[in-house]
Amino acid sequence: MTQFLQSLKWENENLLILDQTMLPHKIVYRKYFHYKQVVMAIQKLIVRGAPAIGVAASYGMVLAVKSFLKEGLSGEVLKKALKEAAACFINARPTAVNLSWSVNQMLELCLVIPEKQMYKKTLEYAVHMQQQDQSICKKIAMHGAGLFVNKKNLHILTHCNTGALATSGVGTALGIITELFNRDQLNCVYIDETRPILQGSRLTASELIAANIPCKLICDNMAALVMKSKEIDAIIVGADRIAKNGDTANKIGTYALAIAASYHRIPFYVAAPFSTFDFNISSGDYIIIEERSDDEIKKIGTEWIAPAEISTFNPAFDITPYHLITAIITESGVIYHPNIETVTTYENALIKK
Amino acid sequence: MTQFLQSLKWENENLLILDQTMLPHKIVYRKYFHYKQVVMAIQKLIVRGAPAIGVAASYGMVLAVKSFLKEGLSGEVLKKALKEAAACFINARPTAVNLSWSVNQMLELCLVIPEKQMYKKTLEYAVHMQQQDQSICKKIAMHGAGLFVNKKNLHILTHCNTGALATSGVGTALGIITELFNRDQLNCVYIDETRPILQGSRLTASELIAANIPCKLICDNMAALVMKSKEIDAIIVGADRIAKNGDTANKIGTYALAIAASYHRIPFYVAAPFSTFDFNISSGDYIIIEERSDDEIKKIGTEWIAPAEISTFNPAFDITPYHLITAIITESGVIYHPNIETVTTYENALIKK
Repeated sequence: MTQFLQSLKWENENLLILDQTMLPHKIVYRKYFHYKQVVMAIQKLIVRGAPAIGVAASYGMVLAVKSFLKEGLSGEVLKKALKEAAACFINARPTAVNLSWSVNQMLELCLVIPEKQMYKKTLEYAVHMQQQDQSICKKIAMHGAGLFVNKKNLHILTHCNTGALATSGVGTALGIITELFNRDQLNCVYIDETRPILQGSRLTASELIAANIPCKLICDNMAALVMKSKEIDAIIVGADRIAKNGDTANKIGTYALAIAASYHRIPFYVAAPFSTFDFNISSGDYIIIEERSDDEIKKIGTEWIAPAEISTFNPAFDITPYHLITAIITESGVIYHPNIETVTTYENALIKK
Repeated sequence: MTQFLQSLKWENENLLILDQTMLPHKIVYRKYFHYKQVVMAIQKLIVRGAPAIGVAASYGMVLAVKSFLKEGLSGEVLKKALKEAAACFINARPTAVNLSWSVNQMLELCLVIPEKQMYKKTLEYAVHMQQQDQSICKKIAMHGAGLFVNKKNLHILTHCNTGALATSGVGTALGIITELFNRDQLNCVYIDETRPILQGSRLTASELIAANIPCKLICDNMAALVMKSKEIDAIIVGADRIAKNGDTANKIGTYALAIAASYHRIPFYVAAPFSTFDFNISSGDYIIIEERSDDEIKKIGTEWIAPAEISTFNPAFDITPYHLITAIITESGVIYHPNIETVTTYENALIKK
C-alpha cells in the first residue's frame, strides 16, 4: 500500500496544511497558528475536499481556543468570540456541509467545557475527528468495493479529487477505487481533469500515479465519449452536501456526468460520509451554490487563456437530482435508489444508534 | 457590423494565415509559400475550423501547383505530384470532410486543365471557394435566425469556435448567433471554453467581445447547470462531418452537450454547409476520430497542469447521434429531425440542382 500525501497534520501546537494549489509542482506544508489563517486557507482552496476542510476547521477551532485563552478572554466574552470564529469557518465555503457539521460539534464542546480544560479537550476532539474520518473512509471503501464483487477488469470514471488529499484517510470515491485496485479488480480509472481548478489533473492524477493505479486523464467534455466507447462499468464521485431526498451537491460537472451516465445506462455512485447529509433540507433546491471569481476560468497559473474583458459564470458546484443516482455509499452501508424514503430510513437507523 | 479578424488571405502570390494558436494574446499572420507549410499549419491548428481549413487547403493546392510548375514538372509526373500533395492535405486532419471536399475539387480541376493555365485557373477557383464560403455563411445565418422568428431575449449556448476564424465569412453557428444579435433578439451567449485547445475562451470569446455581443464564458462541465438554471433557448454548434443518417462529428464535448440538451428538452441545432456532409458513409460509426497528443491536455502554454507521467485519452471530436439533433441548418435550408430519409431528401434535392 502506497502512503499518500497527508492533507494536514497537527504538529507542535500548530496546524500544518499541504498547499494543494501548488500541486503537482511543489509539496509545501504551510504552518498555521491563528484560526483566521485557516479560514483563509479554506477559502483559497489551500485545503479542499469536504471531509478535509471539516477536519481543518476542527483544528482551526482549536487554534481559536488557544488564541482567545492567550488573550485572556473568558466567560461570555470567550463564548461570543468562539461563536464568531465558528461563523467565520462556516461562511468560508457555503456549499460543503461537513464544514458546519465539524465546526458546530467543536463549538458545542467549547460551550460546555471548563475553560481550563478547553484547549486540551478540543484538541483531543479534533484528533478524534481526524481519526474518525480515516476510519469512515475505510468503511466507505469496503462498502463501495462490495458493489463490484466477482467483477474483474473494471473501468471506472471519476471526477474531481476525493482521495487522501480530500480527506484524512484513503478518500471517499477514490478510496473505493483504491480498494478495487488492491483487490485486483481494476483495469483503468478515467480521471476528469475537473475545470476550472483542475483537481483531477493536479491532484487525483498525482495520487493515482503515486499508488501505481492505472489511469488516464481526460478533459471533462470527453467523459460522455468515454462512457460510450470505453465500456465504463461505473462512475464514482464524492459529495459536498446531500439533501434529505438524496439530491447531491458536488463539484461542478457532476450533474453533466450523471445525465450522461443515465443516458448510457451506467451506474452512477456517490460516496460520502454521514456528515455530508443535511437532513434539514428537503431537496437540493435549498443548497447554496458557491460562485467563485472570474480569474479561475480566465487564467491558469499566471497565463491568461481568455480575453481579460470577458465575464464568466463560475459556479463551484452543481446539484445532481436523486433520480440520477444509482446509490449513495456511506460508512454505514449503501443507500440504493436514494429518495426521501430511503434516505429517511438511513437517517432513522443511524439516529437510533 | 463589426469587422471580424480574417482567418486567411491571399496576398502577393502567397497565403497569409492568422496564427490562431497565438490568440487572444497576439495577432500574427504567417506567410506560406510552399504547400507543405500549409499542411503543417492545418495539423498544428494554426488554422482550424472545418470550412476555414477547406479554404486554406484550396490555396495550399495553388501553392503546390506553383511549386511543381516552377520545378519544371509536367505530364504524368506533375499529376502524380499533385495527387500526392492532395493526399498530404486530406491526411492532415482525418475528421473534417470539408478538407477532402475542397482538395478533391482542386485536384479534379488540375487534372483537366492545360498546364499553362493551371496556376491562374486554380487560383481563380480557390478565390471562388473562399467567396462561396462567405455566401454560404450568410445563408446559414439567415436560415438559422429564421428558426427564432418572433422570439426575443434569447439565451443561446455554443461550443468551440464557429465564427469568422473558423470560416471565410461570418461563421456557421456563430453566424446565426451574430444575425440574432443584429436582429436585436439576443440576450446572452454562453460560451463553452472548449478544452483542451480552448477555442471557446481564446477565439469565440474574442470574436463576440469584438462584436459587442453580450456573452459569458463557462467551463465545459458547467453547460448542464447553465441549461438547467439559465433558461437556455437553444444550443447551436458547428460540424466537421455529417454522415448520411445525420450523425454529426464535431469538436469533442458536443456529444455531452446534446445529451444534456435532450435531458433538458432544449433544441439542439447543428449549423453546417453542404460540404460538411459525407454521403458516402451511412452513419457516424464510419467517421475516424482524430486523437491528438498528450501535451494538449497536460500543458497550457508552457505551464504543466498535470503530472508529466500521466497518460491521456485525447480525442479531438465526438459523434452526436442524429436522434439528439433537433435540426441541421444548411445554406439550402433546414433539415428537421435529421435521419436517413430527411438527409437523403436534402441530398437528392441538391444533386438535382
